[in-house]
Amino acid sequence: MSNKIYLVSEERLADKIHTFARFGDDFCGGITRYALSKEDELARDEFVRRMQNIGCEIYSDDLANLYAVKKGRGKSKKKIVMASHLDSVKNGGNYDGVLGVICALEVLETLHAQNIPHRHDLVAMVWTNEEGSLYPPAMMSSAIISYPYLPLKFRESYKEEDLLKAKSILDNQTTFIEELKKFKYYGQRKNRINKEDYLAMFELHIEQGPILEANKKEIGVVDKVIGMCNYRIKIKGESDHAGTTPMSFRKDALFAASKVLIYLHQKLDELDKDLVYTTGEIVCHPNVHTVIPDYVEFSLDARHQDDCVIDQVKEIINSLPKMFEKCEVSTSLAWHRDTVYFNKTLINYVLEATKKLNYPYQYINSGAGHDAQMISYMLPTTMIFVPSKNGHSHCDEEFTSIKQCYQGANVLLNALLKCDEDFE
Amino acid sequence: MSNKIYLVSEERLADKIHTFARFGDDFCGGITRYALSKEDELARDEFVRRMQNIGCEIYSDDLANLYAVKKGRGKSKKKIVMASHLDSVKNGGNYDGVLGVICALEVLETLHAQNIPHRHDLVAMVWTNEEGSLYPPAMMSSAIISYPYLPLKFRESYKEEDLLKAKSILDNQTTFIEELKKFKYYGQRKNRINKEDYLAMFELHIEQGPILEANKKEIGVVDKVIGMCNYRIKIKGESDHAGTTPMSFRKDALFAASKVLIYLHQKLDELDKDLVYTTGEIVCHPNVHTVIPDYVEFSLDARHQDDCVIDQVKEIINSLPKMFEKCEVSTSLAWHRDTVYFNKTLINYVLEATKKLNYPYQYINSGAGHDAQMISYMLPTTMIFVPSKNGHSHCDEEFTSIKQCYQGANVLLNALLKCDEDFE
Repeated sequence: MSNKIYLVSEERLADKIHTFARFGDDFCGGITRYALSKEDELARDEFVRRMQNIGCEIYSDDLANLYAVKKGRGKSKKKIVMASHLDSVKNGGNYDGVLGVICALEVLETLHAQNIPHRHDLVAMVWTNEEGSLYPPAMMSSAIISYPYLPLKFRESYKEEDLLKAKSILDNQTTFIEELKKFKYYGQRKNRINKEDYLAMFELHIEQGPILEANKKEIGVVDKVIGMCNYRIKIKGESDHAGTTPMSFRKDALFAASKVLIYLHQKLDELDKDLVYTTGEIVCHPNVHTVIPDYVEFSLDARHQDDCVIDQVKEIINSLPKMFEKCEVSTSLAWHRDTVYFNKTLINYVLEATKKLNYPYQYINSGAGHDAQMISYMLPTTMIFVPSKNGHSHCDEEFTSIKQCYQGANVLLNALLKCDEDFE
Repeated sequence: MSNKIYLVSEERLADKIHTFARFGDDFCGGITRYALSKEDELARDEFVRRMQNIGCEIYSDDLANLYAVKKGRGKSKKKIVMASHLDSVKNGGNYDGVLGVICALEVLETLHAQNIPHRHDLVAMVWTNEEGSLYPPAMMSSAIISYPYLPLKFRESYKEEDLLKAKSILDNQTTFIEELKKFKYYGQRKNRINKEDYLAMFELHIEQGPILEANKKEIGVVDKVIGMCNYRIKIKGESDHAGTTPMSFRKDALFAASKVLIYLHQKLDELDKDLVYTTGEIVCHPNVHTVIPDYVEFSLDARHQDDCVIDQVKEIINSLPKMFEKCEVSTSLAWHRDTVYFNKTLINYVLEATKKLNYPYQYINSGAGHDAQMISYMLPTTMIFVPSKNGHSHCDEEFTSIKQCYQGANVLLNALLKCDEDFE
């Protein structure tokens, strides 16, 4: 079997991409499709409709993760899963997450249409609340399910009872679990993906960065999710009237915060050139144009494959001067993760499939977090990346061509079939 | 009459300060009392109750400005008014605005209690929405009323029909005029303070800055409100995923904004040492810790008594480089005011009263805007400042001692009586 090349339908794939783009269309080129929303429900309805058409068994678990199972012909009752998510950030794009689900659907539809034999049950799966846009944190469901296998030091952040009580960022009141129980796809706990019944997981995803495009590669063979740390930097000044306080009397927390941010850029730029770091969020109090700010807090997210570089980042943050512009500076580590390596056998299936299909490829790290990273602690797991135009993601401009999506789906199909052939 | 010294009741004044602090108590040492709120209504009820007790005539106008008139014994039907505001910023203090109203009440109560004769009708008045906290801009009512007398170049910003349609910053929907019409103290247009019926206006206020305290002075004889300009600085970058975009590909609008802010500080610090400037507000989009910001906007408020210095500020902002860190920078002038000089005769009454009472004093500028600044275009107007502890204002820590409030009220009483004696 392994020398035969299987191909999905480019037309059917394109149709799905266009169809799913309607569920939460923001009419600016992208979508807003929060987990557990009406739009999420509509997208899942489409998933179910398609999978019922090809005779799959459908069920969901008590986190509303949704499964479509195409029965295998072999004796093994074990399953191989292709999974990603349908939820988006606010004004996100039409590819992040949803493309992995669409390709999983396309793979099963191809197996059905071409009557391709497979031994194991093959599953297309939707993870609930990967983005954590309304109910942080991201990767909530996969964290809950892989919890027993997570390194001890991470478990504190991912207790199921705490995560389920996550409050909506919109009203700071509605909890995830309340909405979950009302959701159409709320199911049974016994249906959760698990170590006993599943052999492996594949996740196809857009790169969300510019590397494949810059290197003229079509497929990213992902071998790891790079480590990160995420800090909150807090600056305490003094609030006073903008018109009446001489400059020399001021303790301006926002001016101090600018100095801290530039200081951090200077120091961090001296570390390894592959380090990426971002201040994406800033909070200023009272944030009134006639009042000198007394408190500013900003995020600092830093990522690198080498945990030693992340340690250097931590050192820089921990040794930040305590005073900037007469304001007190303090920091706290919000969370971190070590670099997570994917399963070598699965990586190799992806590599072989890509070579067989003759697509230009390269090894690549994932800088973003994905459900695959959580599940890799529980099951053999890997990912496939396709290019993102201009590297844009989490925005309306996010784009991957139909041809590139098609190529990704073909790699997924052939890697999955090799896994089905080899795994017991 | 002019050599006699009149004194208010320190005890009665203190009682009022404590009473008004309850209406909107934030239980952190200050108050939140937005214009047209329930708390605003309660504070006005107290104003009315006290003024009815001493036989004042009470009415309000169609902007809900509230008037208590104590009849004079003279032939003149013209009025002299002591006015300030009861509304506050979010988590504001117990002195900004309300102290001017309390002292006006105390002056009328003193005249009544001591049966002090006066020729003109003397008025205690409450301005609606001085802060503009919920419904910008600040000084809304006084701007509307003094509109026909404002310099032509300012009128564009203060059209009544536009101001009344101001939307609540909380929901960006509810308009000022909707809430105004529902407010208990919504009254008749004919009752508005005007140039024909009024002779002069006094406003007592806290300094909101550290100068009096630093110079060990108890009374600030205010001779002008210093000029200002207020800009919005806008930085356009590109939004991308924090984990996947190499540093060299980024157009980080927040990092660029920090550079712009520090650049502006460097340039503005080279101008006159009395210049004050503030960035109190910053908006960052999408403000998510895992996304590189694509848009940042911040305010820049600059104030100086010499309009030439304000012109230099404008020049620096207008010649700001168009690019910082690969992001596009643009600016727009939100508003400005020229330095406003108060009425010399009234300033002199305040000066004489202070000297007669033997309080340490100095001339001082107002850096903040006040309703007095608008009304000064229509009527002879001036202000009296009392010290602010550590210069704090617009915050819970705002504080002026009872003794200092008492001294301020005494200056107001004696200056008012001199005006009553002299003016026809």
